[in-house]
Amino acid sequence: MQDTSPPTDQMETDRIRISRDFERVRHFSEQLCEPLITEDYGLQTAPEASPPKWHLAHVTWFYETFLLRPFLPGYQVFHPRFEYLFNSYYEQTGTGFWPRPERGLLSRPSVAEVYDYRHHVDAAMERLIADGPESDWPRIWPRLRIGLNHEQQHQELLVTDIKHHLAHNPLRPAYRPDLPSAAIADPAPLGWTRFDAGLMELGAGPEGFAYDNERPRHRVFVEPFALADRLITNGEFLEFIADGGYRNPAFWLSDGWATVKREGWTHPLYWEGQGTPNPSDWQIMTLAGMRPLNPAEPVCHVSYYEADAFATWAGKRLPTEAEWERAAADRPIRGNFVDDAWLHPRPAENGEGLRQLFGDLWEWTGSAYLAYPGYRAPAGALGEYNGKFMCNQMVLRGGSCATSRNHVRLSYRNFFYPHERWQFKGFRLAESIQ
Amino acid sequence: MQDTSPPTDQMETDRIRISRDFERVRHFSEQLCEPLITEDYGLQTAPEASPPKWHLAHVTWFYETFLLRPFLPGYQVFHPRFEYLFNSYYEQTGTGFWPRPERGLLSRPSVAEVYDYRHHVDAAMERLIADGPESDWPRIWPRLRIGLNHEQQHQELLVTDIKHHLAHNPLRPAYRPDLPSAAIADPAPLGWTRFDAGLMELGAGPEGFAYDNERPRHRVFVEPFALADRLITNGEFLEFIADGGYRNPAFWLSDGWATVKREGWTHPLYWEGQGTPNPSDWQIMTLAGMRPLNPAEPVCHVSYYEADAFATWAGKRLPTEAEWERAAADRPIRGNFVDDAWLHPRPAENGEGLRQLFGDLWEWTGSAYLAYPGYRAPAGALGEYNGKFMCNQMVLRGGSCATSRNHVRLSYRNFFYPHERWQFKGFRLAESIQ
Amino acid sequence: MQDTSPPTDQMETDRIRISRDFERVRHFSEQLCEPLITEDYGLQTAPEASPPKWHLAHVTWFYETFLLRPFLPGYQVFHPRFEYLFNSYYEQTGTGFWPRPERGLLSRPSVAEVYDYRHHVDAAMERLIADGPESDWPRIWPRLRIGLNHEQQHQELLVTDIKHHLAHNPLRPAYRPDLPSAAIADPAPLGWTRFDAGLMELGAGPEGFAYDNERPRHRVFVEPFALADRLITNGEFLEFIADGGYRNPAFWLSDGWATVKREGWTHPLYWEGQGTPNPSDWQIMTLAGMRPLNPAEPVCHVSYYEADAFATWAGKRLPTEAEWERAAADRPIRGNFVDDAWLHPRPAENGEGLRQLFGDLWEWTGSAYLAYPGYRAPAGALGEYNGKFMCNQMVLRGGSCATSRNHVRLSYRNFFYPHERWQFKGFRLAESIQ
Amino acid sequence: MQDTSPPTDQMETDRIRISRDFERVRHFSEQLCEPLITEDYGLQTAPEASPPKWHLAHVTWFYETFLLRPFLPGYQVFHPRFEYLFNSYYEQTGTGFWPRPERGLLSRPSVAEVYDYRHHVDAAMERLIADGPESDWPRIWPRLRIGLNHEQQHQELLVTDIKHHLAHNPLRPAYRPDLPSAAIADPAPLGWTRFDAGLMELGAGPEGFAYDNERPRHRVFVEPFALADRLITNGEFLEFIADGGYRNPAFWLSDGWATVKREGWTHPLYWEGQGTPNPSDWQIMTLAGMRPLNPAEPVCHVSYYEADAFATWAGKRLPTEAEWERAAADRPIRGNFVDDAWLHPRPAENGEGLRQLFGDLWEWTGSAYLAYPGYRAPAGALGEYNGKFMCNQMVLRGGSCATSRNHVRLSYRNFFYPHERWQFKGFRLAESIQ
Repeated sequence: MQDTSPPTDQMETDRIRISRDFERVRHFSEQLCEPLITEDYGLQTAPEASPPKWHLAHVTWFYETFLLRPFLPGYQVFHPRFEYLFNSYYEQTGTGFWPRPERGLLSRPSVAEVYDYRHHVDAAMERLIADGPESDWPRIWPRLRIGLNHEQQHQELLVTDIKHHLAHNPLRPAYRPDLPSAAIADPAPLGWTRFDAGLMELGAGPEGFAYDNERPRHRVFVEPFALADRLITNGEFLEFIADGGYRNPAFWLSDGWATVKREGWTHPLYWEGQGTPNPSDWQIMTLAGMRPLNPAEPVCHVSYYEADAFATWAGKRLPTEAEWERAAADRPIRGNFVDDAWLHPRPAENGEGLRQLFGDLWEWTGSAYLAYPGYRAPAGALGEYNGKFMCNQMVLRGGSCATSRNHVRLSYRNFFYPHERWQFKGFRLAESIQ
Repeated sequence: MQDTSPPTDQMETDRIRISRDFERVRHFSEQLCEPLITEDYGLQTAPEASPPKWHLAHVTWFYETFLLRPFLPGYQVFHPRFEYLFNSYYEQTGTGFWPRPERGLLSRPSVAEVYDYRHHVDAAMERLIADGPESDWPRIWPRLRIGLNHEQQHQELLVTDIKHHLAHNPLRPAYRPDLPSAAIADPAPLGWTRFDAGLMELGAGPEGFAYDNERPRHRVFVEPFALADRLITNGEFLEFIADGGYRNPAFWLSDGWATVKREGWTHPLYWEGQGTPNPSDWQIMTLAGMRPLNPAEPVCHVSYYEADAFATWAGKRLPTEAEWERAAADRPIRGNFVDDAWLHPRPAENGEGLRQLFGDLWEWTGSAYLAYPGYRAPAGALGEYNGKFMCNQMVLRGGSCATSRNHVRLSYRNFFYPHERWQFKGFRLAESIQ
Repeated sequence: MQDTSPPTDQMETDRIRISRDFERVRHFSEQLCEPLITEDYGLQTAPEASPPKWHLAHVTWFYETFLLRPFLPGYQVFHPRFEYLFNSYYEQTGTGFWPRPERGLLSRPSVAEVYDYRHHVDAAMERLIADGPESDWPRIWPRLRIGLNHEQQHQELLVTDIKHHLAHNPLRPAYRPDLPSAAIADPAPLGWTRFDAGLMELGAGPEGFAYDNERPRHRVFVEPFALADRLITNGEFLEFIADGGYRNPAFWLSDGWATVKREGWTHPLYWEGQGTPNPSDWQIMTLAGMRPLNPAEPVCHVSYYEADAFATWAGKRLPTEAEWERAAADRPIRGNFVDDAWLHPRPAENGEGLRQLFGDLWEWTGSAYLAYPGYRAPAGALGEYNGKFMCNQMVLRGGSCATSRNHVRLSYRNFFYPHERWQFKGFRLAESIQ
Repeated sequence: MQDTSPPTDQMETDRIRISRDFERVRHFSEQLCEPLITEDYGLQTAPEASPPKWHLAHVTWFYETFLLRPFLPGYQVFHPRFEYLFNSYYEQTGTGFWPRPERGLLSRPSVAEVYDYRHHVDAAMERLIADGPESDWPRIWPRLRIGLNHEQQHQELLVTDIKHHLAHNPLRPAYRPDLPSAAIADPAPLGWTRFDAGLMELGAGPEGFAYDNERPRHRVFVEPFALADRLITNGEFLEFIADGGYRNPAFWLSDGWATVKREGWTHPLYWEGQGTPNPSDWQIMTLAGMRPLNPAEPVCHVSYYEADAFATWAGKRLPTEAEWERAAADRPIRGNFVDDAWLHPRPAENGEGLRQLFGDLWEWTGSAYLAYPGYRAPAGALGEYNGKFMCNQMVLRGGSCATSRNHVRLSYRNFFYPHERWQFKGFRLAESIQ
């Protein structure tokens, strides 16, 4: 979708374009669900994952609540209880919400009814986009843009949650057995790029679309550092495992070591194997089903604790988000995104210089997810979008193979709890230079 | 199904009859699922309940494991992992089993595949019943009889689990909106029947089919007692509530009071209302959806703790299973069973004498579920059927509106943990006479 | 103490005797605490155990609440908050109580203050016993008798809780290093005593002191059985362990097996060793500190689950409480009690016939703890003494090496949850005879 | 203690001074325990608090492990199991450690034995300080300095843990009833100090003693901001409560709101009252026992979540640690410390300009506790001192009324989890200036 706010004289052209963006985003959610059978739509295998049916309905509820109810005169809600069932966490709507860990306990509404809900809302949204009064447009358009970005975020969650649901099943069913895969290979050599100390600007400027948490743009001083030119691979991570990585507390943060012991972790999520240093003894669960471990692919589905432990073991550290943004500035947003339909990270291309900054995997940074100086959350329920999560989570940058290409920005800040592994997350090393 | 073991000379006739019994029982499971939509089949809203899909597959696994694999030469298992997925708790099969609380986390096999599984096993079972060698029959027939009784038990669980799944949904969907209902009325008067002291025989004799836990028949001395002639009703239970029943620890067993406080119980399961003594302020969830509370209907979905607390409040007690069996001896097994398709308890008929002993609701007794003197569990995995549960559970007698009429016997011992409420359970009062 | 209610004309003599009983019981609680250091008094190493200080104060609170406040005019309570701190579970006193699992979180009142509390109450009690008006005596004496029995029960808990507290400490400190011990030996041969079928009377008759739960005496028919003539020993239990007892689910009740796996049990409580079948590879924690395992001693600190699993492994079962009481009837109450100051079970004496019925160890029976027919709990808070625990617990009989000899009766019913092990509990086998 | 490393030619003088410092620090721990009774020493009322006895022994174990064993020839450990009992969390010592939540379950060693342990180690330490070979001194002295700082940290924990233990007791016993208190008053007016944007240096320089986590000193750019000139008071916090502060999710971080609901928080820790806006309806537990709430005193024992919610409610935010350090730079370390023996925060003095930066209360900052660029944890077990906690915690600055004056530095970084409240923690507001 476009990321500039439209000048009024272009309104009609813009509305046609926006209508097409809306259709495209809405269609893509349903396209992602095409490989599912009805039974898959209701599943929730972890409290932090959600059933596909719930995602499809929740993103629809967002338009209904924040656009159709306030702005489309005479709009009839599809079902009076859906605002309770499909609100995620917005306390300020005042309607309450069905408990998150119980989203998988609802067989009704049926999948067909959820699709009916979507089409009911789609039709109303098309009316609003076509006929909404010009005077409301300055309030409609920013909300709609958030709605579309919001749906794109849930498209990524659809991919990662479906992966979790299917991987939990001992039959290890494939979501799409036809997905391509890279040739098994050894990792490319790891190079480093150096950056001098300097004052930089961090975050999104005032123009164009960005989430509140990317603003305001502000000055940050960065000490000299070097950044690895690609993501850490399965092959390298296997060396860490073989060197007792999961058994030696010296490598781990205290909370990480407690997690390792409590959860019994001995390898990244979705790995299955014998614990040997030989890659051919390992398999991993992918959206195409079980596959041999490819040493050249970036290691994926690791927690912050595992990323940090690897870095400690390697004598390095994770980059800060400022360092990452400094390195990625002025680069094109190119990479392996959901649009490429691999749905799996690819080995870094051969060559020199920084690679894989965008796409493939979200990169854990060593920065806690906190407000930028001068940050203010918007007023009202929509203000609960980003600010209230600014505690206990770490920033990830760059997007993944499950992210839409036009959803990512240089200043985009993703965030997760340090123990979470079910997203497409990997990491890149950094080090300080004295 | 027939409950006498067939003499050899009748074998052919018997096999035809058994084949018909088998078909009937198998068909009834599927008939119970007809009102479901695909999404309902996978749901598990409590660790002690199971998804309908799982029930359909588990009873099928039972025939496959205990009959087809040992006795049908050349039988091909339908799927090699199903013995892991659909074994319930038989440790001695050596195959392990998927954790019970996670039965709802499997979208595959699909509902259609589970039906295919059923039909694959049905066809093989028909071959075994028709052609199984006479020499194996003395081992086949007892296992088959257990298999059919086992499936009938799971048919009852299908009904109670579906009720739990739908009642958990805030939309309160009906399983069958067309079910009949009794007219709202006041409870009939409560009468008492007296029994003298005496030595009686308890349990099933050596002839006919019975579970191991009903045997051996043995002598029990019963002191004089009186038994209420019908079940306690919603109207009477509402008086208990109105008298502070759920707020006064003096009425409760210590473990019961702890449960009341921990769970926040203020009424039986599936009641919804204002807490007033007026029946018209209350509704209850049924398999036909929400309905007004009927004071004349037996109170249902109560735990042992609630039954015992009511009895204490009323200055009475619950009957022992010997007292119940003594009172029910020589009576016909008549009542409101699943065959009647009410799927809900009915008010006691007017009249005199003991009523509702069979059907309507399982009756909590004051007897712990323990071995009868001389009891021996059968050897092997099938020995895990009843004996290993002989601790911490209480006996219920008489069958319910979700039980098959030909499944119940005078000596039948059902058992549940004292806090469990999701079965169709009620109670009848008793008192000792000095 | 005496167990008959005194005729009025003997009042003065009786009061002198009762006063002496009172002093004796009160003194014994303090005597049991003599080996403790101040730091030991406040410890609570399990929610079901209590700090010694709490026991000393709680039994004192009992006299204050049920005797001094109602019957001693002008009695000044020692401290207004003690009724909150030292009530155990009596809901009907209306004062509430400090949560049981937090009894170990109170450093105040100090040990010295608790002794002051005791002496304050003792002095008042002596006045009440000496001068209480004759007209109140019929209400005072039964409560006082319960108070003394109640204190004796807590004396047993003092012993078992102190053992738990000290055994939890990795330094394994001894309570009394000077306790005697039996010579290491092999178990004596196990014989059996047979009993014919017959109608018997179970429970305490109307004369003499007994708890409410031992009454009314009633008729029970017992089928023929045989009873092992002594308790099962460490040596025999080691054979069960060596035969995979803790690894084979076939021996275990379902709830027992779940407990074994959840708790990681591989031997009885307080055993420490290598898992080998050689007794000399094992040690056990006793009140005298760590000692070598003596194969001839009765196995101790086992749960009901372990006792039942051993019996299943041995092809036997546990006796019912009726069978136990039938076998023990007309025998003198002789054995190894707390009065003998061994504080540990002793090997059975050589010889023939039933031994160890009284003392040494409480014997798990296969009977659930339930009301006898005709049972009624007394009214008021004192009615919460026994009846409210009649669910989920099993009966134990015969007293232990931590029980006072004059506290036990033929009809005495002790009860604990089937998973509990910290009391001095063992078991004896039985079998049905056809 | 002195915070410069001694030049070799001053060794003897230095050793005498260090010996005096050692004695002073050691003595102060024992002095803090003087008001305790023996029973208080063993208590642990929360998993994150520790028994006083444990603190006294643990700081002693530190010297034994890191100084006496490696550097004092012929040193005999006091007790071979103490390294297991009194190691806190050092995984790399290889000895394991007694589980933290069970530190209160040890009645032995006795209090007297722990004092003996202290004196045994003190004597050996004096020998080491006096006679340790000059060649070892460069390794001894840095460890000893950490040991003394470490003991000072535990002195603060002694104070806060004792407060928690006594406040948990419904008798609300006072630690020292003789502590002074400030006159009840209204809060002084709240002023603001502005700071321009600029590049600053953050952290400790290479000279003098500082913990590893304060280094290296590095450049940080700070945008313009204003800082409140004193801590937020009880009176102001009561306005937040009266305005529905604990009931309105709009003020709270998502994790904070979940904590409020789970814990049932309605006011800061140690407040007791009626929920009214009237200060005289509230009391607070202090180390001098219960006292009326003083509106002029800084609000104390609040979590990060409460500090952040107050700031959101007030339209402000918490300062970053860089902002705090910028404001506090070049100011004398003056304030209300443990040396002043108030053991409670005092109202801000009247006047202008920044007050209370040091002492009174640790101030929550909005900065996550993370490594400074270029940070490296020291090798070996001592490296587990600070670095492994760099996740999920927030930085606090400035010291409190329970901190030793000579323990605090401008660059000192304290850190706690955002839900923790039992330390002496308050906060000061900040805001960004555009």
